[in-house]
Amino acid sequence: MADAASVAGRADVRVSPATGGITAPAGFKTAGVHCGIKASPTALDLAILASDKHASAAALFTTNLAQAAPVLVSRQHIEQTRGTARAVVVNSGCANACTGEQGLAHARVMAAETAAAIGCAPEEVLVASTGVIGVTLKIDRVIAGIRSAAGELSPDHGSDAARAIMTTDPFPKEYAVTVDTPQGAFRIGGMAKGSGMIEPNMATMLGFLTTDAKVPPALLRQALVSSARDTFNAITVDGECSTNDCLIAMASGASSVAIDEASYPALLDGFLAVSRELALGIVRGGEGATKLIAVTVTNARTIDAARQVARTIANSPLVKTAVHGADPNWGRIVAAAGRSGVTFDIDRATVHVGGILLFENGLPHDDATPRAAEHMKGTAVQIEVSLGSGTETATIWTCDLTAEYVRINGEYRT
Amino acid sequence: MADAASVAGRADVRVSPATGGITAPAGFKTAGVHCGIKASPTALDLAILASDKHASAAALFTTNLAQAAPVLVSRQHIEQTRGTARAVVVNSGCANACTGEQGLAHARVMAAETAAAIGCAPEEVLVASTGVIGVTLKIDRVIAGIRSAAGELSPDHGSDAARAIMTTDPFPKEYAVTVDTPQGAFRIGGMAKGSGMIEPNMATMLGFLTTDAKVPPALLRQALVSSARDTFNAITVDGECSTNDCLIAMASGASSVAIDEASYPALLDGFLAVSRELALGIVRGGEGATKLIAVTVTNARTIDAARQVARTIANSPLVKTAVHGADPNWGRIVAAAGRSGVTFDIDRATVHVGGILLFENGLPHDDATPRAAEHMKGTAVQIEVSLGSGTETATIWTCDLTAEYVRINGEYRT
Repeated sequence: MADAASVAGRADVRVSPATGGITAPAGFKTAGVHCGIKASPTALDLAILASDKHASAAALFTTNLAQAAPVLVSRQHIEQTRGTARAVVVNSGCANACTGEQGLAHARVMAAETAAAIGCAPEEVLVASTGVIGVTLKIDRVIAGIRSAAGELSPDHGSDAARAIMTTDPFPKEYAVTVDTPQGAFRIGGMAKGSGMIEPNMATMLGFLTTDAKVPPALLRQALVSSARDTFNAITVDGECSTNDCLIAMASGASSVAIDEASYPALLDGFLAVSRELALGIVRGGEGATKLIAVTVTNARTIDAARQVARTIANSPLVKTAVHGADPNWGRIVAAAGRSGVTFDIDRATVHVGGILLFENGLPHDDATPRAAEHMKGTAVQIEVSLGSGTETATIWTCDLTAEYVRINGEYRT
Repeated sequence: MADAASVAGRADVRVSPATGGITAPAGFKTAGVHCGIKASPTALDLAILASDKHASAAALFTTNLAQAAPVLVSRQHIEQTRGTARAVVVNSGCANACTGEQGLAHARVMAAETAAAIGCAPEEVLVASTGVIGVTLKIDRVIAGIRSAAGELSPDHGSDAARAIMTTDPFPKEYAVTVDTPQGAFRIGGMAKGSGMIEPNMATMLGFLTTDAKVPPALLRQALVSSARDTFNAITVDGECSTNDCLIAMASGASSVAIDEASYPALLDGFLAVSRELALGIVRGGEGATKLIAVTVTNARTIDAARQVARTIANSPLVKTAVHGADPNWGRIVAAAGRSGVTFDIDRATVHVGGILLFENGLPHDDATPRAAEHMKGTAVQIEVSLGSGTETATIWTCDLTAEYVRINGEYRT
């Protein structure tokens, strides 16, 4: 597999933005409806994504020990079908997590009702929920919503679906690309939600990708895992990991392109493009966020070491508050890197902010501080740390830590 | 060694509060002076702690890869003397970290000047600095300060020293106890600073313990390591670890009590009592803190597992903001425990807040929420998570995360 090469791009493959989102690829329909889970009388809170025919499917689930009922049911279903699916049903407003046996029964009912409405087996339906933990689903409303949504399925309702999976996201996140290859063109679409938590303890990150390429389940899974590593798994708002996080991909095969080992890099390129756009949207819409921060660690001995240092810096509250204050405080960056658990020689490390050298040979470049501060006043901040111990690189994206984050999450619930 | 038993207390040993702080034990003198490192024209910013005779000494230093010059020099000195010292010299307002060869030279000058003033060898002096990273010491002012402080050394100046090591701590932290044993009484005193960071990137935690018991260096080190594990190393304000953290103990032997293997538990009890008081003082005075949070994890398979889960909960921004808002949000506690990396069965776990059961058998006890919210309105909040998988327990202390923390650390510097 040529995963590494895919980052560089290929002369015979072109990835370009396409109109629409999750239904940009042929063979998919969606609907987003209001069924009464959210308090607002009009807010969309239930979505179905359906493939016209059997689709290849792959899914990644939260690694949290506490797993929501829909995660448990979806995992079981995709194992039973060995990577095929006809539909995904998603509700927002209630995570159906920490809800015991009743919660599991509710998740199974969601799959069964969706299956009956579109005409497939229950295990061909994947289930996702997002919202408050520890609250029981209003299952009668959900059932009514599923029947209503099934009647409205259309390739034109992608934006409704993207809105129906939102909780307190400040904006919907959808994106699509066309991938031109020597074998023909295919599309990849996606939608995602995450990182708004005004209600206490939203179980947060959901992502969905579709393609009309024909992709064997094993290759689909590989593309999902590989692209997630550098996109959805490379972002952090506050270092928290939810009970409901999941990422699902479906391939309809409705285009003329069949993906095999040779053409796999084109699929991966497209998945990377869509996933990166959605993942960065989650960070931009992070709780209280005013700035997108890219933390790149270079010249590490291994990729894992680069990621670990970048993640420690990206999760450092001192770094995140300094960025919020447009303070090019390289000392906090060096201190975070130094406690990351990765061994390197501080005297060979460098720190750049916005391309401006602030720290080198164990000493500061204080005269560069005003220029770095100018860069940090913008909404996209680049932090780059070279460890001087190898050749590997990794980037983690995060947002600044603001008083608004505290307000959102400290708001009195009971 | 009976470290475990020491927590339970012993019938023949009594630990009771004593007047004073670092100089409560016999054989120590201190001074705290203003020498002009801090901007304020009167703020104390240099302290010397001196033992009348050679004292046993032990020290723990930051594990951060980026180590300040005084840390490097002190580590070298205590290795050279194999655990004896005559004095410690401390400045606040400048961390002397990331200052290169010049910084190392300055730290050595501080030791040499102190040694000359009190009449000992330079390697018998330990050095500590706290304050802004990456700034060069005004060494001429420091030298003048050392000479002035050496002339003011007195057993009555403990509080001056405790103030002179502060940076932006909201209050000084000093404490002392008398330990009554069958062999006689001895005293333990201490002072500490940490967790205020209005100046950018204070390199923060310093702790000093004295005793007039006669203690061999190896036992002194053991008591320091053991007591720090459950006190200074069991607190977190924001999960950050500084370039300057250090903890130093000195034993003058000026009392009638000599500590050996048999009487060691009495020393440990006293160290625990003083260290806990100082460590909790650091958390109470944490940046923006309004509440002290004790996170206790019980019924873990190992102590390390209990600590890891407790530390993940204590560093969770979602838990810390929920406590700030007096929101008994057990879902965030369960989610943090679930991502801690420790394996346990969620269905056997329980969550108590203020002794009130909120989560059990995988399900919430929502009717208990109002009572738990009442408890959380106070300034001392107790979170207890039982993992149901063993018998080990650990507690980590932290504070709430507030908008004031963001304000303090995001304030524009340049």
